[in-house]
Amino acid sequence: MTPLQYTPEEPISSIATALAPAALGIVRTSGKGCIELISKAFSRPKALLEAAGNTLVYGWIVDDGAKVDEVMLAVYRAPKSFTGEDMVEIFCHGGPAVVTAIQNLMLKIGFRQANRGEYTFRAYINGKTDLTKAEAIKEIIDSHTDVSRSHAAGRLSGSLFAEIDSIKKLIIDTLASIEVEIEYPEDEETIADTFDRKDIELAISRLQGLVDSWKGEKLYQDGARVVLAGRTNAGKSSLFNAILKEERAIVSDIEGTTRDWLESWASINGIPVRLFDTAGLRETEDVVEAQGVQISRNLVQDADVVLYLVDGREGLNDEDREFIEKCTEPLIVVYTKADLEHGILRAEPLGEGVVEAANNESKPATSTTASKSFSSKNSEPMFAAGTQGKAFPSLSISSKTGAGISELYAKISEILLEGTSTERQQAGLGSARQKEAVAEALECVKHALVSADDNYTLDAVVQDLEDALDYLGEVTGDVTPDDVLGSIFANFCVGK
Amino acid sequence: MTPLQYTPEEPISSIATALAPAALGIVRTSGKGCIELISKAFSRPKALLEAAGNTLVYGWIVDDGAKVDEVMLAVYRAPKSFTGEDMVEIFCHGGPAVVTAIQNLMLKIGFRQANRGEYTFRAYINGKTDLTKAEAIKEIIDSHTDVSRSHAAGRLSGSLFAEIDSIKKLIIDTLASIEVEIEYPEDEETIADTFDRKDIELAISRLQGLVDSWKGEKLYQDGARVVLAGRTNAGKSSLFNAILKEERAIVSDIEGTTRDWLESWASINGIPVRLFDTAGLRETEDVVEAQGVQISRNLVQDADVVLYLVDGREGLNDEDREFIEKCTEPLIVVYTKADLEHGILRAEPLGEGVVEAANNESKPATSTTASKSFSSKNSEPMFAAGTQGKAFPSLSISSKTGAGISELYAKISEILLEGTSTERQQAGLGSARQKEAVAEALECVKHALVSADDNYTLDAVVQDLEDALDYLGEVTGDVTPDDVLGSIFANFCVGK
Repeated sequence: MTPLQYTPEEPISSIATALAPAALGIVRTSGKGCIELISKAFSRPKALLEAAGNTLVYGWIVDDGAKVDEVMLAVYRAPKSFTGEDMVEIFCHGGPAVVTAIQNLMLKIGFRQANRGEYTFRAYINGKTDLTKAEAIKEIIDSHTDVSRSHAAGRLSGSLFAEIDSIKKLIIDTLASIEVEIEYPEDEETIADTFDRKDIELAISRLQGLVDSWKGEKLYQDGARVVLAGRTNAGKSSLFNAILKEERAIVSDIEGTTRDWLESWASINGIPVRLFDTAGLRETEDVVEAQGVQISRNLVQDADVVLYLVDGREGLNDEDREFIEKCTEPLIVVYTKADLEHGILRAEPLGEGVVEAANNESKPATSTTASKSFSSKNSEPMFAAGTQGKAFPSLSISSKTGAGISELYAKISEILLEGTSTERQQAGLGSARQKEAVAEALECVKHALVSADDNYTLDAVVQDLEDALDYLGEVTGDVTPDDVLGSIFANFCVGK
Repeated sequence: MTPLQYTPEEPISSIATALAPAALGIVRTSGKGCIELISKAFSRPKALLEAAGNTLVYGWIVDDGAKVDEVMLAVYRAPKSFTGEDMVEIFCHGGPAVVTAIQNLMLKIGFRQANRGEYTFRAYINGKTDLTKAEAIKEIIDSHTDVSRSHAAGRLSGSLFAEIDSIKKLIIDTLASIEVEIEYPEDEETIADTFDRKDIELAISRLQGLVDSWKGEKLYQDGARVVLAGRTNAGKSSLFNAILKEERAIVSDIEGTTRDWLESWASINGIPVRLFDTAGLRETEDVVEAQGVQISRNLVQDADVVLYLVDGREGLNDEDREFIEKCTEPLIVVYTKADLEHGILRAEPLGEGVVEAANNESKPATSTTASKSFSSKNSEPMFAAGTQGKAFPSLSISSKTGAGISELYAKISEILLEGTSTERQQAGLGSARQKEAVAEALECVKHALVSADDNYTLDAVVQDLEDALDYLGEVTGDVTPDDVLGSIFANFCVGK
């Protein structure tokens, strides 16, 4: 990753809105002389040049006398702008051809195409934002659900920065106590007596809290893969559609609609979930169909949760049992069509005896009464024991009436959130980079405490705590190496 | 179509940018009290309430104390705004979840979701725009190429309005002369002597010019369908990719990538062209492949221009001749791979003798020397005569070197622009609605001239000219019925 260069004398320009037909679009510019530059391509240059900061100027973008579009210019004067530089945002019509024509004109009159994240990088260099807020901008743009968005907004408003700052203060206070001891040594029994142990223990516990927050935050950022599997007519499409009808996530991603599977984003209790509806999984001679089956199997293998659907009127057959038994991913057995005769919340045992019973049925797949012949002995309500002794949660739903669906969501999110910390997520970590640095800081502080308890030298303890401060400084950007900066901003979209 | 109601007391709100991850997004609001309403969900209500028109206010959108996003508010005070009403545009981060959260909050605090085109409708009602400019806004948003965009920008800046206005003036002057004659009759020989015939003739010619402009304008708006057909390995994919590499149109439409065909928008000499790369067209026993062939045939039937590709080293075979012969759409025979041995710009006759010659070849499709056995007698350079006596242009290209490609574009645009008026397109018509009304006006003025020449009553002539004025008034919106208005704005996107 090339480290970013700060070149404020280079005015930059880029399209800042999505390139699709819409009412409005924005071309964003920043840098020294950007107001003067745009005045050369504006119908009212004098009005623009004389405009105060934070005002809007109406006019036309013109290219050698030809009118390009009727626009409003938002004028910002340094240092009162997002980047801290002079800025002009061109609010134009939202047609891709218009927005592109204006951006091309900007390049023609002397702007340079902005790099990814270059506006935010300039804001960071000019002290307008720290790195936790900068990363929160990327996060808020990419967020798939309202919960993800609100976590990001918390970090954007400075919650993580404040938490890091407060932990740094605990460490700095400790360092100050130790420095006093070095300058004016007293007759302490151990090094640990030279500082307030509670401060360091609190710092460790809060750093641990931050580290623990990452797994959950990552889930809310990246989402999870939930795959619907099961025999043909098990009710996969009905459940897929029922979930999307109510919980379609706030994204514009085009749904994958292939011969082999359907996919779409959904919000399951605020967790962004990429939902896959797979083709059937049965063995087949047909080459094309066999491909589909292989793809379905791969989807299942990559799943965070597999929903294995079974027509509740038919119950499990050998094929179902074999799939469930072999599945190594977290799996929920979902009995569908609970609105029909078989009743809701009926769970079935998966023991050997039942396999035999199923084998004795002549046509289990077509007989609606077949399930009645299942024995209910050994059945655990809500849990089905596999032949290998594995236990899977199971429940009964109706995609038609919605019965059991909220229980299904609860079960899915319970699995996905397992092992995540659900407390204080407003001040949770926002990126893997932050997590690595905070984890390092945590190790340093822990080590400092051990060193103190084992009565190492004061210098060793001081070194540990100073290392911790450096790592925390990396999180907020006080002491971040150039290459780290380069890779942070390279992940941004153009225009931010 | 429900006629739109003007309800300025109802503040409206909608997302105005495309709902896809991007640096920035806009939620647009307009109407009485919109500034006060938003102040209830803004971190700096006082700053917002006191803001002058055309200024920008920094702050956070807040929902019951929870921070939603960091934003800039663009404040406009009536009548100095797009709609002529008080307006606030919320410039937020461009994530779909953020933009949607803000719009949902606006609905919660009392805004109504704006109807399609409702902002422009309000602008029209408040005299901020006439209908030709209003329709140009929709056009500029939807434009696929820079030429389309510049035509729309011309109309947005008032070129069409001015042209209509100037024609109206000719008619009004004529009416004035006739009124004088009615009030103070002189001893004229005919009615035609009561007014300046040149004015009316000029009005007719200019109205005719507008009507003639529509076919070309429609082409630049809607685009044309160009289908690549030909045998497997004729070079279809190479040409498809070569065109897109250089001329991909400025659109965000997802390319259709199916088993059966590829499609994408391209700009051929500024004409938006939907380019299709079809599957092969040969007869087949395979059911799936047969479906593909049928789809290809349907694409060919809907084409505005068919490019029939032939490997220049192989030349035409029976299959090619049959296709070309049966094709009822405009077709160009394109000999590909001109960079290879067969040389460029070689055209072949398609006459009966040649069909026989081809029949005598054992394996024309696999022999690279086969084409050499073709007779060149009767050959028209650049034209190939079909067996039914049809003549098709033909040319030779290389997708690899680009040779012949610009000639191909010229030939395609020549076919597409055939019969269109290429003059004065800046003042051309922008919609079918406008064209219908102008054509009616033209008929009325023509009828007035005939009536005058045939010495009908003065009243009849006056009636014709007044009808013409009414039709022209419909174009600009002076006298447009409510239901027409409803259908115009219903075609807009939300947020405009």
